[in-house]
Parts: sequence; structure tokens; C-alpha cells
Amino acid sequence: MRTALTELLAIDHPVLLAPMGGVSGGALARAVSEAGGLGLIGAGYGDADWLAREMALCTDCRFGVGFITWALHQRPELLDLALAQSPAAILFSFGDCRDYVPRVHAAGARVICQVGSVTEAERAAQDGADLIVAQGTEGGGHGGGRSTFALTPAVVDAVAPIPVVAAGGVADGRGLAAALMLGATGVLVGTRFYASREALGLEAAKQAIVTAGGDATLRTRVFDIVRGYDWPGGYTGRVIGNRFTETWHGREAELTGEAADERRRYHEAVARGDAETAVLFAGEAIDLIRAVEPAGTIVARLIREAETVLAGTFD
Amino acid sequence: MRTALTELLAIDHPVLLAPMGGVSGGALARAVSEAGGLGLIGAGYGDADWLAREMALCTDCRFGVGFITWALHQRPELLDLALAQSPAAILFSFGDCRDYVPRVHAAGARVICQVGSVTEAERAAQDGADLIVAQGTEGGGHGGGRSTFALTPAVVDAVAPIPVVAAGGVADGRGLAAALMLGATGVLVGTRFYASREALGLEAAKQAIVTAGGDATLRTRVFDIVRGYDWPGGYTGRVIGNRFTETWHGREAELTGEAADERRRYHEAVARGDAETAVLFAGEAIDLIRAVEPAGTIVARLIREAETVLAGTFD
Repeated sequence: MRTALTELLAIDHPVLLAPMGGVSGGALARAVSEAGGLGLIGAGYGDADWLAREMALCTDCRFGVGFITWALHQRPELLDLALAQSPAAILFSFGDCRDYVPRVHAAGARVICQVGSVTEAERAAQDGADLIVAQGTEGGGHGGGRSTFALTPAVVDAVAPIPVVAAGGVADGRGLAAALMLGATGVLVGTRFYASREALGLEAAKQAIVTAGGDATLRTRVFDIVRGYDWPGGYTGRVIGNRFTETWHGREAELTGEAADERRRYHEAVARGDAETAVLFAGEAIDLIRAVEPAGTIVARLIREAETVLAGTFD
Repeated sequence: MRTALTELLAIDHPVLLAPMGGVSGGALARAVSEAGGLGLIGAGYGDADWLAREMALCTDCRFGVGFITWALHQRPELLDLALAQSPAAILFSFGDCRDYVPRVHAAGARVICQVGSVTEAERAAQDGADLIVAQGTEGGGHGGGRSTFALTPAVVDAVAPIPVVAAGGVADGRGLAAALMLGATGVLVGTRFYASREALGLEAAKQAIVTAGGDATLRTRVFDIVRGYDWPGGYTGRVIGNRFTETWHGREAELTGEAADERRRYHEAVARGDAETAVLFAGEAIDLIRAVEPAGTIVARLIREAETVLAGTFD
């Protein structure tokens, strides 16, 4: 399955691992790359030691690094740390990446910009993105309000001829095939890879992804508040609802007032793997995820299923 | 393009007109049916005279009727009025339609249930639906929170072998092709047909659909409050943002308190075609809509584009 994406990044399959903070480490990135996609390590909120350690697991394989752009602004040296390891690509999401673009290109890596609206896509095109990820609100973790199905073709039209990748809601080969029909050149997949053997993160979260359905997810700010992450306006995180969201979603001001106490309790609960308190980032497509599997198995099935539906005989 | 949908409804193309209240009248339903799809007249909140008049425009063509189910509960005689005109199908949306199913089947019509979640889809399957519409939150007008891209395959898996149609975010042939990849048997299209010559509704709304972009839409309750429609919890309407939403969205309690005054002002504004006050129902896919056209032209292009992308050469 050759597309502009596979050509741009010199990969076999049009599948990118979403750089999920604390989840997409070196082992998962390696597994996705070795299966023919490209694994992006998630730099998250910017822990240099963690990033160095995870990149060290990829010294002999291709990988990329994904940044939360507003967090990178606070620790810009992390971009140098990443570029020193010769990544194939750097992905920027949630913020203005313009000033970083020349350094990435000078290091010989590709610039991927993840956007959540047509307006952001147009800005990313002007800023010099080599590839644009149109991220829909159905995706797990942080994002905006627009949906994959309508956002993808709108971004394709807005930034042509820059290639576009669809993200949000893709968990099987039907999603990959649909993304190609919408004009995307491939997909960026998060939640489906969270439920993989190689993913970091909570075991309880992996089990929740496998057992819960998409009707049970919601977008919320409560986990950002309790964890003390100062996300800019307009971004929320999609999670599987649990006792913590039942308690606090809709009572954000009150939670902010009690954040110190709640934060201590929250981290204690996370330490004991309490799925009713810990954040369970997941997208709406969890209906389609039924087992924790090796990432390579997931990539192979995505491609096989997509080829089957594109050939018109999906069962 | 033959699918289980075209077979079930005996139509040439897998395209249904969404029964938009006050917009999908007899002329638009006729135009879509004559172009090879099936036009569904929107019974809206239940004006019997309006419905009789619009159905009278379809005495010599195939059509269906779509009900807001909770509104039908208040005027159940409208179902008899519709069935007396031998519709090909009755669509139920937003409420429990179980008690109506036997009467529709006895009249020789198909039962279509529109759902916004996997849970609702499972209930519709048990209730005897012949066809299930999975409606994503990107669609215009009323709906729920789940998105087309992930909802469609989840509903397909949940209700098999009942055929599923995707709705929400479909405005061109790329969307139709993508829906088929996701396992749907066709699409139900609203906003794209609102911007048609035959549609009823405000001319200002048609122009707004053509000129605005999807980033400018939002889901809100403010127009239900000011119009006095008592929608059940969980449903909001997607609209193009205007001065009315800028003023009232987020201040719903205050608007409820001032509803009597605001209602008078609202209806006066609608009467003079004021697009900064009137509700402009529209889905996120308005980025893809660039002209008001005859509905038959829209159907023909949807099919032509879908065939092209399915053949792998979309330009």
C-alpha cells in the first residue's frame, strides 16, 4: 500500500504510532517501525531523562519524536536532545511550532504538524510542515472539537499538495481504508497501540480499553486540573469515564479549589493502579479493540483488513 | 453502486435525504428520489397541515417520512397521516420507537431507526428496525456526542446483519466512499441538501452554509431554549455560530429566565431573515460545500466522486 506518506517517510505501511505521552516509549516505537510503520516516541510534558532512555531503545531502528508544543516552549533544549539521535521526523502538536521548523529541517528530519481545525492546518502549511495530521475529537487523549470524518477532507483541500494523515477513531483496517477515501495518505493511531504489549502506561488502562465501549468515553479537563497541567483553552482529553470523572466532571472550579488535597490522593491511587481514579486516556474507537496484542500483530492486521475492504470483500 | 441499502429500499443510489424539519419538504424529497436516492420528508415537531401539504407534492414519486420520536409521542396521529400516503419508509430519531414499529410494517413500509450510540443501536435492532442510521455528532441539527468515524463500524458490528447507514459529516463522494469502507451500506445526507435549490428553510442559512467553514460550527441548546422546544437531555443542535450563539451559548440558565422576551425578538429576527439571530443548522462538513445547487446535481456528483475515489483516482 504505497501512498505519499510511505514515500515521504520511507516506510512500508501508511501507519504512524501516535506519540502518546508516557505510553509510546522506545519499545513500542521500535515495534511499530519494525512492522513497517513509523513509531513516534511521546515526549509528553518534557522529562529529558525519560526521553533519552526511550530513544536509546531505538538506536538501531527508525523512529520519530512527538512534542506537546506548549510544553516544549518551557524546555526547548529537548528538541536538541531529540535531534541529536537522528529521528526520521518530529511531530508538533498543540501550539505554535514555527520557530522549531528550521532546526528540524537542518537536522535532516521531517516536520509533522498535528492540527485540530482547518485554521490550524493552514497555519501549519505556512510554517513549513512536510506532513499534516488532521486529528479528530474522537481520538483518545488531548485534542480539540472537530471530527475526523469531516475534518480530514477539509484539511486535504486546504493544504494541498502537502500530504495529510488522519487521526482519531482509527482502530482497524476499515478506518485506514476510510481515511484513504477521505483523501488522507495514511493514519496516525493511538488507542489501538495503547492496548499493545509494548506500550507503557497503566495495565488497568489497557484492560479498560479492551473491556469498555466507545459510548463510555468523554472529553474532560478534570485530569489536567488534578495533575496540575496548565493546558491552553480549547483542549480537553478524551478518557474512559470512571469514578473520578463521575465525581468531578462538571465541577471543575471546585476541583481546582481542592487540587492540592486531591492531587495527593490521585497520585496514591495511580500508584496502586486504581482504574476508578487514574486517567484512562482512550478514543471512541475502543468498541473495535478486543485484546492486548503485540504491536506488530496490530500493524499487520490493520494493513490486511484495509486491503480487504478496499478490494470490496470485508467480512 | 449496489448495496444492501439500495436493495432494501429499491433505489438506484445508496443516498438518503435526511428528514430535516422545515427544510426537507416534498419538493426536495422528490428531487432526491428522482435522482436515484430516497427523499425523506421531515415531520419536525409535528405540524399536520405542513406534513400533508408536503406529502401531496410526492403523490407520484417514492418518499419516506422522518419523525422526531419524542415529538411524535405528543401527536401519534401523525404516523397514521404519513402511513396513509404509502411512504417507502418511516425514520424515527431521538426517542423510543418500539410501539410504532408494527404499524409501519403492517402498512408495508420499512422502519429506519437513527441512533447516536452503540447502546441505542442495540435497542433499535431489538425493536425491529430494518435499517439503522448511525448519526455522528459532526452532523447538522440535533444529535448526540459520538462521531461518525468510530460510531459507524461499532454499530455495524453491534447490529449485524441489519444494514447500517452513516450520517453526519457526509457532503461529497469522499464521504460516501469512506462510509462504505467503514461497513455502512450508504449515507444519509442533511446539510449538503440544505444548500440545494429545492430545500425549504432560510435563504440566509443556505448562504451561510456555502460561505462558512466547519471550524465555525458548534453544538448548542440555545435555539431550543429560545424557541421553546423541550428536548430531552443529551441532545444538542449543531449550528453555524452567529451573534445569537456568541451572546447566549454558555448562559443557558439566564436565557431560560428571559425566554419570553427573547422569543418575541427571535421570531421577529427570523421573519426578516436575520442570519445573526436565526438558527443556522449545519454540520461540520460545510467546508466541502461551495454552492447552492439542484439536489439532482448533488446526488449525481456524490455518486460520481465516490466511484472515482473507490477506483483510486480522486483528483
